[in-house]
Amino acid sequence: MNVNGIPYKTVWMEGSSVFHIEQNKLPFEFAVYEAKTYQQSCFAISSMIVRGAGAIGASAGFAMAQAFLSAPTNARQEYLLNARKEIEATRPTARNLFFATEKVFEAGQISVENAVACAQKLAHDNDADGEKIGILGNELIQDGFRIETHCNAGWLGFVDWGSALAPIYKAHQSGKKIFVYADETRPRSQGARLTAWEMVQAGIEHRIIPDNAGAYLMAQGKVDLMIVGADRIARNGDTANKIGTLEKAIAAQYYGVPFYVAAPFSTFDLGCPDGAHIPIEERSEEEVLTQTGPDADGKIRTIRVCAPESKAINPAFDVTPASLIKGIITERGIIKPNEKEILKIAQHDR
Amino acid sequence: MNVNGIPYKTVWMEGSSVFHIEQNKLPFEFAVYEAKTYQQSCFAISSMIVRGAGAIGASAGFAMAQAFLSAPTNARQEYLLNARKEIEATRPTARNLFFATEKVFEAGQISVENAVACAQKLAHDNDADGEKIGILGNELIQDGFRIETHCNAGWLGFVDWGSALAPIYKAHQSGKKIFVYADETRPRSQGARLTAWEMVQAGIEHRIIPDNAGAYLMAQGKVDLMIVGADRIARNGDTANKIGTLEKAIAAQYYGVPFYVAAPFSTFDLGCPDGAHIPIEERSEEEVLTQTGPDADGKIRTIRVCAPESKAINPAFDVTPASLIKGIITERGIIKPNEKEILKIAQHDR
Repeated sequence: MNVNGIPYKTVWMEGSSVFHIEQNKLPFEFAVYEAKTYQQSCFAISSMIVRGAGAIGASAGFAMAQAFLSAPTNARQEYLLNARKEIEATRPTARNLFFATEKVFEAGQISVENAVACAQKLAHDNDADGEKIGILGNELIQDGFRIETHCNAGWLGFVDWGSALAPIYKAHQSGKKIFVYADETRPRSQGARLTAWEMVQAGIEHRIIPDNAGAYLMAQGKVDLMIVGADRIARNGDTANKIGTLEKAIAAQYYGVPFYVAAPFSTFDLGCPDGAHIPIEERSEEEVLTQTGPDADGKIRTIRVCAPESKAINPAFDVTPASLIKGIITERGIIKPNEKEILKIAQHDR
Repeated sequence: MNVNGIPYKTVWMEGSSVFHIEQNKLPFEFAVYEAKTYQQSCFAISSMIVRGAGAIGASAGFAMAQAFLSAPTNARQEYLLNARKEIEATRPTARNLFFATEKVFEAGQISVENAVACAQKLAHDNDADGEKIGILGNELIQDGFRIETHCNAGWLGFVDWGSALAPIYKAHQSGKKIFVYADETRPRSQGARLTAWEMVQAGIEHRIIPDNAGAYLMAQGKVDLMIVGADRIARNGDTANKIGTLEKAIAAQYYGVPFYVAAPFSTFDLGCPDGAHIPIEERSEEEVLTQTGPDADGKIRTIRVCAPESKAINPAFDVTPASLIKGIITERGIIKPNEKEILKIAQHDR
């Protein structure tokens, strides 16, 4: 996608460096972080310079490839296993991360070049899968639709295109008039910061809404469709995604709003039987207690937004049961969230 | 309730001045705003120096009394009618406001002193009703309960005691061990700022949670009871309250968490048949796009928390249908949210 008219990917690798659009600075500043080592790529993931299930996956694959590039000749396997462990410890919930480290680790057993080629292919597939999700998901969107989304599952969350926002891009490009409600998505405000920024870049009409306003708009019949991304989908269709997704899914069912998850196959965890087995990351309470952004003079400041002596709870994800999901838009087709359909698409050739 | 050990009311009148705890400065600064005229009291309401259905009602009653005190002898009735219109234009949703202006306006037809006495009685009743709500609501709370609340319906939202938080205060005072989840309540963060501050002052164990985390905690069985306040309750039990209440009520029903509304009888609008007839205030988008609070040096700053070119939608309230409410805790008893029970308590003598 374009940034001020120039095409960009979210994450890419050149030589032994991995480049990441610094998402924690957006939308106030556009900058690119160069990770010269796998450790720096780990830092990019854990510090949320890069975030979003797909982009984390691509970054983790590149980090694993960087480890092959830097591995010493003696105690090589120990170094690589340790690197893999370090990469996999950066974020616990996103399935795509583990999918990528596993693939690149295996590919690297043949040669270092093969590890790099595998990581590049994973990033390319991530991009191509997003576009396919967009094409398939666009079939659900009618002219005039008002679509709500939570957090950011746009191109910034992937290498390009995104998952939940890909159908919105395709609908817009195909000339449909659409309107997007971007949930603010506290505490890190990925909707207000990243989804809204993507919509501005693409020229798509939208409004930021407080997370609290979703059910109100649904009650008024103002939401035609809800699409969200996913961080991990269990074999039975239960879906972990950004905290607050569950609440929207329950409200959508209550008001009869079609609720779809969009995710590439790499987000599915076939070894995970159901949502109860998905680990949920608990993040620092500071993310709830403070907010960061520019003041009137454009200087970035961090302020406290709550009572001084209080503490907070900050679970980063929740699990939406399959029963609340109308369908999952994948690059291999739109499927029902159940084991039978999930195992069927697992058989597809890539 | 006590502030740093000194007892305070939220709103009170001395001579011709009305004093308001400046809630828009809390929890970062404790200050009191003196409104010397009814116009300044109007400003206190519209600018949200005073907020919360009960406190707005008390302030509006005092403002109406101030108008009687300042009314000229010629064109007196015109002046008073105009003042009433101005007071009633400050905030459209809170029923208590209209309840108070009507009562004081009628009382003032006898004498100015009677208007002031009526306003003082309304404020006193507001206080006493809160305590009764606390005593009755405490019966719903068991030792060890974890209670979620949305926005601030504590003593700051009333003259004292509050509605939703009154049972929590009574439970704490009666020696029950309780734990409170305070929903942050974006965009104005009344939960993170005011409810959490009240809990700190009272020494009640609590955590601030992002609004997005409610359903997640309910899904884990970590919420035993939810109590919220109300801005207006229609004759059929439909309840307008702070935006996001509806979403919690839907989630609570989904997970079988008892969902109660707490409100004094002055919040009921018997002339309003149902929730569809309750006007919903749309507030400035700046409340969503920016946040205010102290930086690390304690200087209050306003920062932008979203993409620079984006706009927002900011409905201040939503309506929870009676079918999602298990009961309404009033000073006249805990009732079911239906016309029959509401009309029955309307018959009570005060």
